[in-house]
Amino acid sequence: RWQCTRQIGCTQLVAGPTNSISDVAGVRVGHVTLAEGDVQTGVTAIVPNADNLFASPLCAGAAVLNGFAKPMGLTQLDELGILQTPIMLTNTFSVGRVYTGLVRYMLEQAPEAGREQATINPLVLECNDGYLNDQQAFAVSETMVHDALAAANTSFERGSVGAGRGMSCFGLKGGIGTSSRYIHQLDATLGVLVLANFGRLSALRLDGMALSEWIEPCLTQPTAQRDAGSIIIVMAIDAPLSARQLKRIAKRAGAGLGRLGSYWGHGSGDIALAFSTASQPCHDVDDSHIEELLCASAEGCEFAVLDALLQATPVQGFRGHSRSTLSDVLDKLAAQHGLSH
Amino acid sequence: RWQCTRQIGCTQLVAGPTNSISDVAGVRVGHVTLAEGDVQTGVTAIVPNADNLFASPLCAGAAVLNGFAKPMGLTQLDELGILQTPIMLTNTFSVGRVYTGLVRYMLEQAPEAGREQATINPLVLECNDGYLNDQQAFAVSETMVHDALAAANTSFERGSVGAGRGMSCFGLKGGIGTSSRYIHQLDATLGVLVLANFGRLSALRLDGMALSEWIEPCLTQPTAQRDAGSIIIVMAIDAPLSARQLKRIAKRAGAGLGRLGSYWGHGSGDIALAFSTASQPCHDVDDSHIEELLCASAEGCEFAVLDALLQATPVQGFRGHSRSTLSDVLDKLAAQHGLSH
Amino acid sequence: RWQCTRQIGCTQLVAGPTNSISDVAGVRVGHVTLAEGDVQTGVTAIVPNADNLFASPLCAGAAVLNGFAKPMGLTQLDELGILQTPIMLTNTFSVGRVYTGLVRYMLEQAPEAGREQATINPLVLECNDGYLNDQQAFAVSETMVHDALAAANTSFERGSVGAGRGMSCFGLKGGIGTSSRYIHQLDATLGVLVLANFGRLSALRLDGMALSEWIEPCLTQPTAQRDAGSIIIVMAIDAPLSARQLKRIAKRAGAGLGRLGSYWGHGSGDIALAFSTASQPCHDVDDSHIEELLCASAEGCEFAVLDALLQATPVQGFRGHSRSTLSDVLDKLAAQHGLSH
Amino acid sequence: RWQCTRQIGCTQLVAGPTNSISDVAGVRVGHVTLAEGDVQTGVTAIVPNADNLFASPLCAGAAVLNGFAKPMGLTQLDELGILQTPIMLTNTFSVGRVYTGLVRYMLEQAPEAGREQATINPLVLECNDGYLNDQQAFAVSETMVHDALAAANTSFERGSVGAGRGMSCFGLKGGIGTSSRYIHQLDATLGVLVLANFGRLSALRLDGMALSEWIEPCLTQPTAQRDAGSIIIVMAIDAPLSARQLKRIAKRAGAGLGRLGSYWGHGSGDIALAFSTASQPCHDVDDSHIEELLCASAEGCEFAVLDALLQATPVQGFRGHSRSTLSDVLDKLAAQHGLSH
Repeated sequence: RWQCTRQIGCTQLVAGPTNSISDVAGVRVGHVTLAEGDVQTGVTAIVPNADNLFASPLCAGAAVLNGFAKPMGLTQLDELGILQTPIMLTNTFSVGRVYTGLVRYMLEQAPEAGREQATINPLVLECNDGYLNDQQAFAVSETMVHDALAAANTSFERGSVGAGRGMSCFGLKGGIGTSSRYIHQLDATLGVLVLANFGRLSALRLDGMALSEWIEPCLTQPTAQRDAGSIIIVMAIDAPLSARQLKRIAKRAGAGLGRLGSYWGHGSGDIALAFSTASQPCHDVDDSHIEELLCASAEGCEFAVLDALLQATPVQGFRGHSRSTLSDVLDKLAAQHGLSH
Repeated sequence: RWQCTRQIGCTQLVAGPTNSISDVAGVRVGHVTLAEGDVQTGVTAIVPNADNLFASPLCAGAAVLNGFAKPMGLTQLDELGILQTPIMLTNTFSVGRVYTGLVRYMLEQAPEAGREQATINPLVLECNDGYLNDQQAFAVSETMVHDALAAANTSFERGSVGAGRGMSCFGLKGGIGTSSRYIHQLDATLGVLVLANFGRLSALRLDGMALSEWIEPCLTQPTAQRDAGSIIIVMAIDAPLSARQLKRIAKRAGAGLGRLGSYWGHGSGDIALAFSTASQPCHDVDDSHIEELLCASAEGCEFAVLDALLQATPVQGFRGHSRSTLSDVLDKLAAQHGLSH
Repeated sequence: RWQCTRQIGCTQLVAGPTNSISDVAGVRVGHVTLAEGDVQTGVTAIVPNADNLFASPLCAGAAVLNGFAKPMGLTQLDELGILQTPIMLTNTFSVGRVYTGLVRYMLEQAPEAGREQATINPLVLECNDGYLNDQQAFAVSETMVHDALAAANTSFERGSVGAGRGMSCFGLKGGIGTSSRYIHQLDATLGVLVLANFGRLSALRLDGMALSEWIEPCLTQPTAQRDAGSIIIVMAIDAPLSARQLKRIAKRAGAGLGRLGSYWGHGSGDIALAFSTASQPCHDVDDSHIEELLCASAEGCEFAVLDALLQATPVQGFRGHSRSTLSDVLDKLAAQHGLSH
Repeated sequence: RWQCTRQIGCTQLVAGPTNSISDVAGVRVGHVTLAEGDVQTGVTAIVPNADNLFASPLCAGAAVLNGFAKPMGLTQLDELGILQTPIMLTNTFSVGRVYTGLVRYMLEQAPEAGREQATINPLVLECNDGYLNDQQAFAVSETMVHDALAAANTSFERGSVGAGRGMSCFGLKGGIGTSSRYIHQLDATLGVLVLANFGRLSALRLDGMALSEWIEPCLTQPTAQRDAGSIIIVMAIDAPLSARQLKRIAKRAGAGLGRLGSYWGHGSGDIALAFSTASQPCHDVDDSHIEELLCASAEGCEFAVLDALLQATPVQGFRGHSRSTLSDVLDKLAAQHGLSH
């Protein structure tokens, strides 16, 4: 029920038709999900609209809210302001394999890269799913990058899938979530996809309310108040923007996380990235015009996380660890209090 | 009533004895307030405990959440990680005068500064109070720096005083607010003082609720949805911390702003700064120990802004502009809905 | 003689017609010089071509090579990537006065700034001339900003003038220097102006040679090996470039300083800034096209410093301190070794 | 001959006993070199003195001089200021494999990493050796990380070995170089190791002289003026320093590169990193004490690059490409001009 209505929270801006990152025309998402015993992990690919990103990169900017993280590709993205590959998400220990797989994939489009042409800057972002998944199994292989990219579609699953398979969020099951916001003044859409794996339950706020004391008794396992989380926030925008402006927009994801109770905990590698699907060369619009995109960034991030929490299905994995879902918890609470719907 | 109880919002951490930045031992605050006709502005000084900051600087770190701002002193603070002067707050056009006044003040302690000794790095932060105050009057003089510093006390006024005199916040009257949080695990106190001048009313969330439609009819003047705001957040902490750690802590103010509905708007120069009153040399504690300070930073900032809103008194100034106070609005709403207390 | 030929160093790129920042069409420079007894200081204004920078700002980017400095305006320049005022240079203690003077000057063009319009971001950069000038005299007044701006011309003095009056460089007399480089491939000119006040004599390299043992005996006063210097490097470019690219270009000034033997000493606030006089909106060219501008930045900075050294005239000032000039030293060395020319 | 004397350039500071990074007690270097046909590449490991870096990390700081690069590990290093693994160098396309290999290696020391403990932040830095090496062969395997680490020794080869096997520098053969500087005032040693793969021949300056017109005719193959280079600079220091100070020191490598004629070209990913072998916790010394370390950083970097150029042996590789060595060129020039030695 909560999964269908996606009703928690009040929103000021309007969502796009599917309330998903694919509301930005051409953006597709694909998953490879591994779910066997101790291995509960995967790979998620976010593919912008471009045919050949190496030949025709997109403007992009990133913000490191908290750098306890192992991202690959941000140094060059920051220097040049461009996105040159699809964006891959996976678990921390698999960043190397996905890096290599993504280089190999790009060579199909750019056979002289690293030879007569420059090298490639693979963009790989990660969270630590070590509570539910045995990262030491190194279950992700280089070829799964191709599989995730081949699976990319404008319609895609959320919740406990792809890189989100083993993720936790506020002591509940986390994973992949998405949302979008349409900005009338600019006739522009901002789409968000998150890999949500952050937050202490005691800090969670839903609609501004601290509910951890209600939620905790409903959990199937006591939640360790570990701070070894992270969140990756990826935004696509169909307005022409410069790298500097995209960085400003990406950064506002942090305000959205704050609304959920997050304080960007010490161990949480919180990274946001935004790219523009409008064609190159990048150019600045007047910054006063991006005001509503800043607002959409914060709200879109907040609601993409809520989506991840609500779409998640329960997962049991490494060492018997499991995570309850927010949907189940809300059902339990509703039943306890005799709410019908 | 709301001013006494300071009740809005639910808090997870414990406040210090006075719920003020002066709960950090030795930290004092002083104001000069100008309130005549079109001139509604002032100067606020935050004085750390040290006797002579030039000779014995404190470790400090700052985070620029949004750089649409005219701070003085952050470049050197970022390079060297130290605070060498008291922190002065004022309106944007007065930064130059306060800079000069602060240099002159420091020369009393360091008569060879800029001669045989190095120069001084004056720390001056500002917000734009141009809605209620005529900045073009250049009413702040160099000598008011001495006056504000001379007035510094552990007990101090909040609301529409000092640099906060002409400030607006979420379309309401803003100004000076303060709070503190005590961290049991570290036996440490984090104190916050804000100069709150940011936010669109339509974005405001109190306890997670969007109340602008209720608030707007209660205002004495229609609020322009201008984004020309800003907020300065100053934190004092009595634990030994390095500049790098203080920067991490300061940055979390952004999460607290997010909880109030802010998305760090384009025109809002949002800057946070934290200093440690523990003695030099700076040294790192294990970063995992600062977790609760990150949490306190977000929450302390949120509640210092609420304090600014609740302590503010109405101000009428430049071109007849005025701002209503949140306290008055809440009283009106309570009366309308027949609430007694 | 050395002042005419400006011959030291071998250059790879071609200078513009006047080998000065004014080779970038429309860029003008003006000075106010104070030279009486203990007061040996001044103000220098660099005025881009635009009629009204507040209404029509230019793209700009800055690089902080070493942040032991008190610049005003860089935070907003970094956030928004625009230059909104002329660039003012002065001594460290006078930054406040020049800030106020520059705000006042801009109000003539923007009478509603800080009222119905946003505030102004005054760009004021400084070096510490405390060896030759008594900064505690506070001899620079707010109105000198107008005077320096009124004096701005495409033909201007270099050496011991304006803000350069009291500056020292490698234990010699420093000050204002300029240069330009023409990039054939882009049909673009990069002009540089420096306020040179950095470097230890023992580190100086001319044409790669360490000459301090030859130079030191020629000095009229033993040089204190103080590290309390700084250098400000301002670049104008007539090619359309984004703020990100201008920042990349500005940064390369650091390589030029390295060629002179500098290692960006601890106490030396080394800051470089570049702006584009091409019209707005900013837009990216392909970054591979800026290669020659990076080269020109390093070389232009190196030669602008050499120009400052060679154009400087001797100054005696505060506490009887004086600095010899490189020209005089080279004349002495040439005479000692029987060189004729 | 030039290899033995390492005589080019004049130095102001004193080298340590072996003029190598291993003059910092305990620092060791190991190589795996691949040299067959089109494959001319390898892996180099720099191992600090610590027994278990995961349990007892070292303070570290990094500076990105030019971010056209694919480093792994800098985001977390910047946030936390610590080095948690040995530092691995390799070619660009092999970063992923080396990442995975380094994670696996660290698991031997930290078997619960990524499970009950936090994950690992592998530090992997790269240059593009695509002119001499076929990166698309993906010849580096995960296990070579172990081999390079097992080979680490205080005595180690330089030049065309390890990650340096296929590197080019100023159109000549580049590779691994090292140097050290002893700072008497601090009784401290700063050691440098570079992976040198940067620079256009036309820009090269030796002892301040532009010699490209002399060198070019001596080359066995015409040099493409490609800018697809990079340099990695790693510094070890045995003084106690904070991460902030180590970052300041690392950054000065850029001044050293400038002295060689580099302007940190667009395509050159120039990254410097410094770590302290003194024990934790990090703490600040007074920054004025690091002046000589800044000087040593610039000079040490300059001479480590010269060492790489002088130690390099000729390599022929991918597509028949080859690079001459500076030693051979200098021999030829000496012979042409009848110099004997």
